[in-house]
Amino acid sequence: MKEEINLPDIQNTEDTRGISIDKVGITNVYYPVLLKQKEGADIQASARVKLFVHLPREYKGVNMSRFMETLAKHGNLISSDTMPLILETLCNRLESKDAYARFEFDYYIPKKSPASDNIAPQKYRCAFAGELRDGKYKFMLEVNVIAASLCPCSKAMSMSDCSCSEVGKGAHNQRSHIRVRVECNPKDVIWFEDIIASIEEQASAPTYPILKRPDEKYVTELAYSNAKFSEDILRDVQIATLKFPISEWNIRVYNEESIHPFDVCCYQQSSGWTWD
Amino acid sequence: MKEEINLPDIQNTEDTRGISIDKVGITNVYYPVLLKQKEGADIQASARVKLFVHLPREYKGVNMSRFMETLAKHGNLISSDTMPLILETLCNRLESKDAYARFEFDYYIPKKSPASDNIAPQKYRCAFAGELRDGKYKFMLEVNVIAASLCPCSKAMSMSDCSCSEVGKGAHNQRSHIRVRVECNPKDVIWFEDIIASIEEQASAPTYPILKRPDEKYVTELAYSNAKFSEDILRDVQIATLKFPISEWNIRVYNEESIHPFDVCCYQQSSGWTWD
Amino acid sequence: MKEEINLPDIQNTEDTRGISIDKVGITNVYYPVLLKQKEGADIQASARVKLFVHLPREYKGVNMSRFMETLAKHGNLISSDTMPLILETLCNRLESKDAYARFEFDYYIPKKSPASDNIAPQKYRCAFAGELRDGKYKFMLEVNVIAASLCPCSKAMSMSDCSCSEVGKGAHNQRSHIRVRVECNPKDVIWFEDIIASIEEQASAPTYPILKRPDEKYVTELAYSNAKFSEDILRDVQIATLKFPISEWNIRVYNEESIHPFDVCCYQQSSGWTWD
Amino acid sequence: MKEEINLPDIQNTEDTRGISIDKVGITNVYYPVLLKQKEGADIQASARVKLFVHLPREYKGVNMSRFMETLAKHGNLISSDTMPLILETLCNRLESKDAYARFEFDYYIPKKSPASDNIAPQKYRCAFAGELRDGKYKFMLEVNVIAASLCPCSKAMSMSDCSCSEVGKGAHNQRSHIRVRVECNPKDVIWFEDIIASIEEQASAPTYPILKRPDEKYVTELAYSNAKFSEDILRDVQIATLKFPISEWNIRVYNEESIHPFDVCCYQQSSGWTWD
Repeated sequence: MKEEINLPDIQNTEDTRGISIDKVGITNVYYPVLLKQKEGADIQASARVKLFVHLPREYKGVNMSRFMETLAKHGNLISSDTMPLILETLCNRLESKDAYARFEFDYYIPKKSPASDNIAPQKYRCAFAGELRDGKYKFMLEVNVIAASLCPCSKAMSMSDCSCSEVGKGAHNQRSHIRVRVECNPKDVIWFEDIIASIEEQASAPTYPILKRPDEKYVTELAYSNAKFSEDILRDVQIATLKFPISEWNIRVYNEESIHPFDVCCYQQSSGWTWD
Repeated sequence: MKEEINLPDIQNTEDTRGISIDKVGITNVYYPVLLKQKEGADIQASARVKLFVHLPREYKGVNMSRFMETLAKHGNLISSDTMPLILETLCNRLESKDAYARFEFDYYIPKKSPASDNIAPQKYRCAFAGELRDGKYKFMLEVNVIAASLCPCSKAMSMSDCSCSEVGKGAHNQRSHIRVRVECNPKDVIWFEDIIASIEEQASAPTYPILKRPDEKYVTELAYSNAKFSEDILRDVQIATLKFPISEWNIRVYNEESIHPFDVCCYQQSSGWTWD
Repeated sequence: MKEEINLPDIQNTEDTRGISIDKVGITNVYYPVLLKQKEGADIQASARVKLFVHLPREYKGVNMSRFMETLAKHGNLISSDTMPLILETLCNRLESKDAYARFEFDYYIPKKSPASDNIAPQKYRCAFAGELRDGKYKFMLEVNVIAASLCPCSKAMSMSDCSCSEVGKGAHNQRSHIRVRVECNPKDVIWFEDIIASIEEQASAPTYPILKRPDEKYVTELAYSNAKFSEDILRDVQIATLKFPISEWNIRVYNEESIHPFDVCCYQQSSGWTWD
Repeated sequence: MKEEINLPDIQNTEDTRGISIDKVGITNVYYPVLLKQKEGADIQASARVKLFVHLPREYKGVNMSRFMETLAKHGNLISSDTMPLILETLCNRLESKDAYARFEFDYYIPKKSPASDNIAPQKYRCAFAGELRDGKYKFMLEVNVIAASLCPCSKAMSMSDCSCSEVGKGAHNQRSHIRVRVECNPKDVIWFEDIIASIEEQASAPTYPILKRPDEKYVTELAYSNAKFSEDILRDVQIATLKFPISEWNIRVYNEESIHPFDVCCYQQSSGWTWD
């Protein structure tokens, strides 16, 4: 690549505005990754990727091609294990003090129907991210769970004119979207399988890929016996999440209300949470 | 604009590939429009717009700027009334035999809570579109309704081990998205208000912007008494829609299942439907 | 599953409205699939799936759980090869005369930088779909290509006041999104790799995952030497696509104009095209 | 509404988990608003709305219907002027110490073509938001601008083998999406028109709704003479934004690269920025 030597290299020219940039990089990149499962072989996935570095005030721009070169150098072996190495390479090749990388993908977990024992894979949108800032390494996991929420107030009211206590005319229920982001302790592995199972227990009921009629009866009645506001789900997910070996955390719950054309939502995070 | 005369005009050069193009134009354009209400003054809205013409095989390209000029010429007076004029202008200015225009926008209808009589505006995503093809004018309306659907099978099963007929443990319910597109008879006005009301009656229950507790009880019980599969909603919407003065039609229903992480859906259209 | 026998089965009850339904099924389902590459081992991918059947007028609803059971029965071996079997199983298990299945996924192809020979995987959003209607089997492929388009008129004009013919002040260029859908001849294999390569040749220039400076110079100059309207790209893609062993086809091109806040687009399809 | 008195009110029951919630409310609500223009009459718009309050640890849930009641109480007079009142009403009616409200909408500004003087409205996605936290009121504006960016390195390289300094073979350019969020000083009005004009000057060129050929030539050449990396645009937008009477700020630039299938992006914010 002799030719490159003689080509203009505007990025590396000096910048005189005196402004450093927090985060500069590439986004909406897609790249194949290998995901470790709690049980079974690694699986291939297509990750939507963000890669960022810090740009000092002296430089006009980053060497943008080095982001993709860093991914390509790791070939098909990108996983949570290689995250520290990816961040170091980004810092070195882009001459930056900080680096950030995020990989978001579909993760599948086999799920068994509660009554009929039918098994099928259920997709969860998940992510891992890493940051190397001022020499300190941090690692983050994200899981997104789609569950059922059933309104306790609606349930209580649709029983309220009945003479017997267990007689009702239903309760509005709907899809609840629960997102949990946690900053992991570096030495503890948290499996997607475990944190997802922990979250699903906090909803009115989990969702399933296959529900035969006995399953549907089971899930309907489970949700009915387990009525929860979005606020309840948030609080219970917070309690459950804090049992994992984590430091900072961020939780969002929103319910696609079946009786309203808008969503009900809750947010909560630890006071030291700084990720997005 | 003397200068324009001397500038190259590549679009108008001859094309030798012998291929005409069905539809060429601009999309994801935003433009302010005026919407007529069944009652009350016209309201301003922001429309996402598509404009297309046919390109004969002889021409390399269309005069792209004339699409926006056609809109701008009508200023703030774009409405369903001006549709024929817009299409004629497009045909004339772009020297095309056909033209197509579509405007999609948020339309608000005041909605009264069923028990507490609270009124608030509810948004419906709506559209109108027009086509002038081989001299024949057609006009299309689209409405999107968010309603509640409650599963009859879930309801029947969660009662099935009870001794009394009206005792239950709920039924899964969820948001149902109902889209109806109709080709109108040119001389009959169909109000968004009327077709939306007709569709909402076919769901298990409508959604509302404000629901106080007596309203929530009412809606919960209405949905429970009115259990419907997506298939039921589709069929009933079809029957209701055919009472309007329309020719061709297209109906889609999908339910964001609260017990599954995916959607259930149905499609149906008249055999002569050709719009998208 | 003895219990199931005694549970109510509302879907299978008789419907009296006299209305059959064209397409009923599940959508926004995610399922793992195996994709064949032209060269190399099969790769795992996460597919967004649609599955539909026809519902006769006599039945109230479909047995919705059998869609996912059909996928689960094929385990991890879902590919274009198993499409006919999936459709037959859907028809049999759901007692339908017709079935439709669509799988959409990220497909990766290694791509070499034009000057520096750096290789990295590039993602293409692709799909395959199958239909069994009245006993006749059809198969469809879709590819989506992101390429560069450079405006011939802008190029011609920004040269127009220069005395020498090759002197210019640039030309606006932008991302072009090219989508090609083809109905394949049943006995001919069309590789994603081949149809994508054929489409990329029709743009002003392909896009690349890694571009070092000599590559960037090459691609910039390639696009400049190869100015094309969206109409040109559409026509050239049509000519190139018709060289494959296909029957019906549908092509869409849209350019995210860099000088406008909206998109320019073209559509074209064969007269017998009926897919969506 | 006598009946309400006797209905169960689960939200108001005591919660024993000891967990307060940062933000609970409704999102993806749509509501009509009135927008002030720098010149001319107020215009109607459809806003996507978020409303949040804080929930103390003692309560099980919020009175969700009071969010929409608060909007409805202000009828069609919701604007930036009524923001403090909306927040106070939310705090009072929902018995919360904090409240947050955000309204996002399409805002139109008439834009004149640079050479041909054609005028048409251009849409900008904008927002305003307010927060009342611990008795302190803050107000935020957001604007989103779609502009053209032209790569300085590509321009320099495609000239580099030419003998004369002004001879080139183009430069890749593309859509740049610039988002600026500012926390306003309470007593200073910042017009969308002014901050948008200030941002557009920092891109390689603005985009326009109507461009006749002399305009297209002008814009193409303007962008070519004004080559900028995303980093340049970010820095120049930062300098321009700081001339407004603001306190905290947040800027994002991303370029939909025409030579890559992914985006290049930069983020920057003041150290006290806490909004999302």
